[in-house]
Amino acid sequence: MTAAYHHGDLRHMLLYAATQQLERSGPAGLSLRAIAREVGVSPAAPYAHFPDKESLLAAIATGGFSLLRDACVSAAESSGGDPKALGRAYIGFALAHPHLYRLMFGGSIENFAGHPELDGASQAAFGFLRLNLAGAPDAASAAWAFVHGLAMLLIDRRLRPDDGDIHRLIDRLLQRFDPGRRRTPDSASLGL
Amino acid sequence: MTAAYHHGDLRHMLLYAATQQLERSGPAGLSLRAIAREVGVSPAAPYAHFPDKESLLAAIATGGFSLLRDACVSAAESSGGDPKALGRAYIGFALAHPHLYRLMFGGSIENFAGHPELDGASQAAFGFLRLNLAGAPDAASAAWAFVHGLAMLLIDRRLRPDDGDIHRLIDRLLQRFDPGRRRTPDSASLGL
Repeated sequence: MTAAYHHGDLRHMLLYAATQQLERSGPAGLSLRAIAREVGVSPAAPYAHFPDKESLLAAIATGGFSLLRDACVSAAESSGGDPKALGRAYIGFALAHPHLYRLMFGGSIENFAGHPELDGASQAAFGFLRLNLAGAPDAASAAWAFVHGLAMLLIDRRLRPDDGDIHRLIDRLLQRFDPGRRRTPDSASLGL
Repeated sequence: MTAAYHHGDLRHMLLYAATQQLERSGPAGLSLRAIAREVGVSPAAPYAHFPDKESLLAAIATGGFSLLRDACVSAAESSGGDPKALGRAYIGFALAHPHLYRLMFGGSIENFAGHPELDGASQAAFGFLRLNLAGAPDAASAAWAFVHGLAMLLIDRRLRPDDGDIHRLIDRLLQRFDPGRRRTPDSASLGL
């Protein structure tokens, strides 16, 4: 079966199918041929949009940053700007889309700079986080490092809740973090 | 040229060469054949130690966790147990060996549980961090998430120092982190 798609629509359909496939089977399992089959176009059709696997991965990651930004914007709006709700939404996004999140931050895309739309989408997401996670630039960077590290350790199951309740663990850990306060040099410590 | 190696020595030589090659050209560039050539053994010789690429990657990552633990132990010893020095050593290790650190935490090894020695080495490294980064288990997990996230964002150049001085940025951000203090629920925030 070959469906007729408007050019832009087909690109969206392919990306949607690719993102679903990525989440099912990881980046190694991504195949333009299988995606074409799922969308119902000829095996050659995807190549007009994505000449190679890296351009497909970059487009999926670009879409991922838009989704992440949307998740953060709506958490900020519905919580009245509570940074903890934002942190929870950020980590929740990563847990719901582990392969996508890994792709967005992983090494699968060798040449990040070669994909300006990906760079733009990631900067937009980080810009929103920087503005809303914390006031000062250093505080925002520290907050981002914290939620990113927590998301990665949870995705990779290096950190696991003792009682099986991952959301309670996330809430407890988010409460431990306050990058806004700058400690004086001699009280500076990582927790002692 | 074919050198004669004691079995255990050859394994070490191969691993050393593989770790060097990983750091030069990333996981995609790793080739057992090239490693055999570098060490001066027959192309088939490495397969006695590493039947496939995943077992080689797992062995490299296992060695990485031992190196990371060593770096942290010596930072703890030479600083008299200063958690900030430990954080600096942890992040410094990741910056010095970005491909190795990514491999240790990345998705390149599909089946982590299938490599008990890798699991053991990572647990030993994390156990040391947990004991020394902070007192309570949650505080240790939060501290680890923070240094891990910071390391990853710096490796991937998502976070960059404005003034080009990465060590000053690391020091400033480490000072912002104090997971030992648990905030009361209504003051809980990510930095506002």
